[in-house]
Amino acid sequence: MPSRLPPPTLTTKTLEVLGAFDAGATELTLSELARRSGLPLTTTHRIVRDLLTWGAIELGADGRYCVGLRLWELAALGRRGPALREIALPVMEDLYEATHENVQLAVREGTELVYIERLTGRRAVPTLIRVGGRFALHATGVGLVLLAFAPTEVQQEVLSGPLERWTPHTISDPASLRRALAEVRRVGYARSMSQVTEDALSIACPVRGADDAVVAALSLVVHADTPHGPALLATVRAAARAVSRELGAASATATTAEYSTPRR
Amino acid sequence: MPSRLPPPTLTTKTLEVLGAFDAGATELTLSELARRSGLPLTTTHRIVRDLLTWGAIELGADGRYCVGLRLWELAALGRRGPALREIALPVMEDLYEATHENVQLAVREGTELVYIERLTGRRAVPTLIRVGGRFALHATGVGLVLLAFAPTEVQQEVLSGPLERWTPHTISDPASLRRALAEVRRVGYARSMSQVTEDALSIACPVRGADDAVVAALSLVVHADTPHGPALLATVRAAARAVSRELGAASATATTAEYSTPRR
Repeated sequence: MPSRLPPPTLTTKTLEVLGAFDAGATELTLSELARRSGLPLTTTHRIVRDLLTWGAIELGADGRYCVGLRLWELAALGRRGPALREIALPVMEDLYEATHENVQLAVREGTELVYIERLTGRRAVPTLIRVGGRFALHATGVGLVLLAFAPTEVQQEVLSGPLERWTPHTISDPASLRRALAEVRRVGYARSMSQVTEDALSIACPVRGADDAVVAALSLVVHADTPHGPALLATVRAAARAVSRELGAASATATTAEYSTPRR
Repeated sequence: MPSRLPPPTLTTKTLEVLGAFDAGATELTLSELARRSGLPLTTTHRIVRDLLTWGAIELGADGRYCVGLRLWELAALGRRGPALREIALPVMEDLYEATHENVQLAVREGTELVYIERLTGRRAVPTLIRVGGRFALHATGVGLVLLAFAPTEVQQEVLSGPLERWTPHTISDPASLRRALAEVRRVGYARSMSQVTEDALSIACPVRGADDAVVAALSLVVHADTPHGPALLATVRAAARAVSRELGAASATATTAEYSTPRR
């Protein structure tokens, strides 16, 4: 006998109406909300009325609904996203000034990453990302760092799934990806050249939290022809370490043997 | 006979559980969520279970709930906040680099303002603000701009309410505020000296949307002893105009008579 799921509660239906919005559909009519959330029009109408009253959604002059400012205020209280962003921002500013390129901060959510912050200038190399947007873990610098330090089962899931290609340089076979992840763990950073867009090079380092676990990744995405010697890596590494120190990571507060000068 | 409100739906109760989080309470236990949302523990428990499944809230190792990353992803689709921020960011970066101080972007929500973005460096003058946080309209530079260009009924409501003071310099009587707002409309910018914190000076200009209505305010908040001649104002004004132009404001695209050089 097939197991039966409990019927969705009105709470779940409410969240399904909110979940009808996505990056490709930021403004929706009532009937679009009903269709996308799979709910009857009458139910959707009642939910929409309550969402409007509270401010979770807003109604534009064109009769389309969009995600409301109140939800933005609420989301800003989150621990993993906004709180982390506030701590990382001054460091990200420094990185931006040194390069005028893209400075990105991302966290892992399941088998994908979510961009928490991105600073970018008008002359920075174009990237595909958007704050609050998701991306695959196997291609970008931040993604490779987050995947390399993810639990084994997350790595297995990504390695066993299809690995989308954006350019001919995207790592798209499991064996190469496995080697790339081992290398990230060995050297402590990821370098992704032209794997998402041909003209971009990403250098990413792990950000560690109070228990020294990797909680985020910080990257600098520069033009692919930027000279990327040890200085560029050192800059990103120092920035990630500064954020980790702010988060209370022990490894970022103590001077390790690796960095100490020999006594001789 | 007193009018009776309809009983709150489960949608409203769900939103009340989410609304239990605020800046002073970002991590809450189940019983705190129940108490703050005014709902029975059993109802709260059922709602929390659905919110967790969807990712609207997350459970920390300490048994406390916090606002989830999924809500951040959803909120990032909003029209007034995040979309505006993406457009304004490169311009805000330029302002930041010129000063290493605070660059702020805010919109009006009722009789308060909500900060959409704030760039700040480690040596910037400290301010009381937080991205996603609210503030009164009558004291800050961005607030004075947003209030000056708000509908009359919003101005009336603020003018008739109590005007909180943060420093001896905060405008706190209606007559002075009315004069200050008229001046903002006349000169097209707001200057707020030491009105929220003694050591900060804010210069704010309106950002206009496609119909030329004021949709946001952009400010530079510098140390109070920074020389604030015409150059500083011109920088902020040019930045606000650049954002307005990106939003399609007619007044920011045409060269107006005011700016044109005499023919001879």
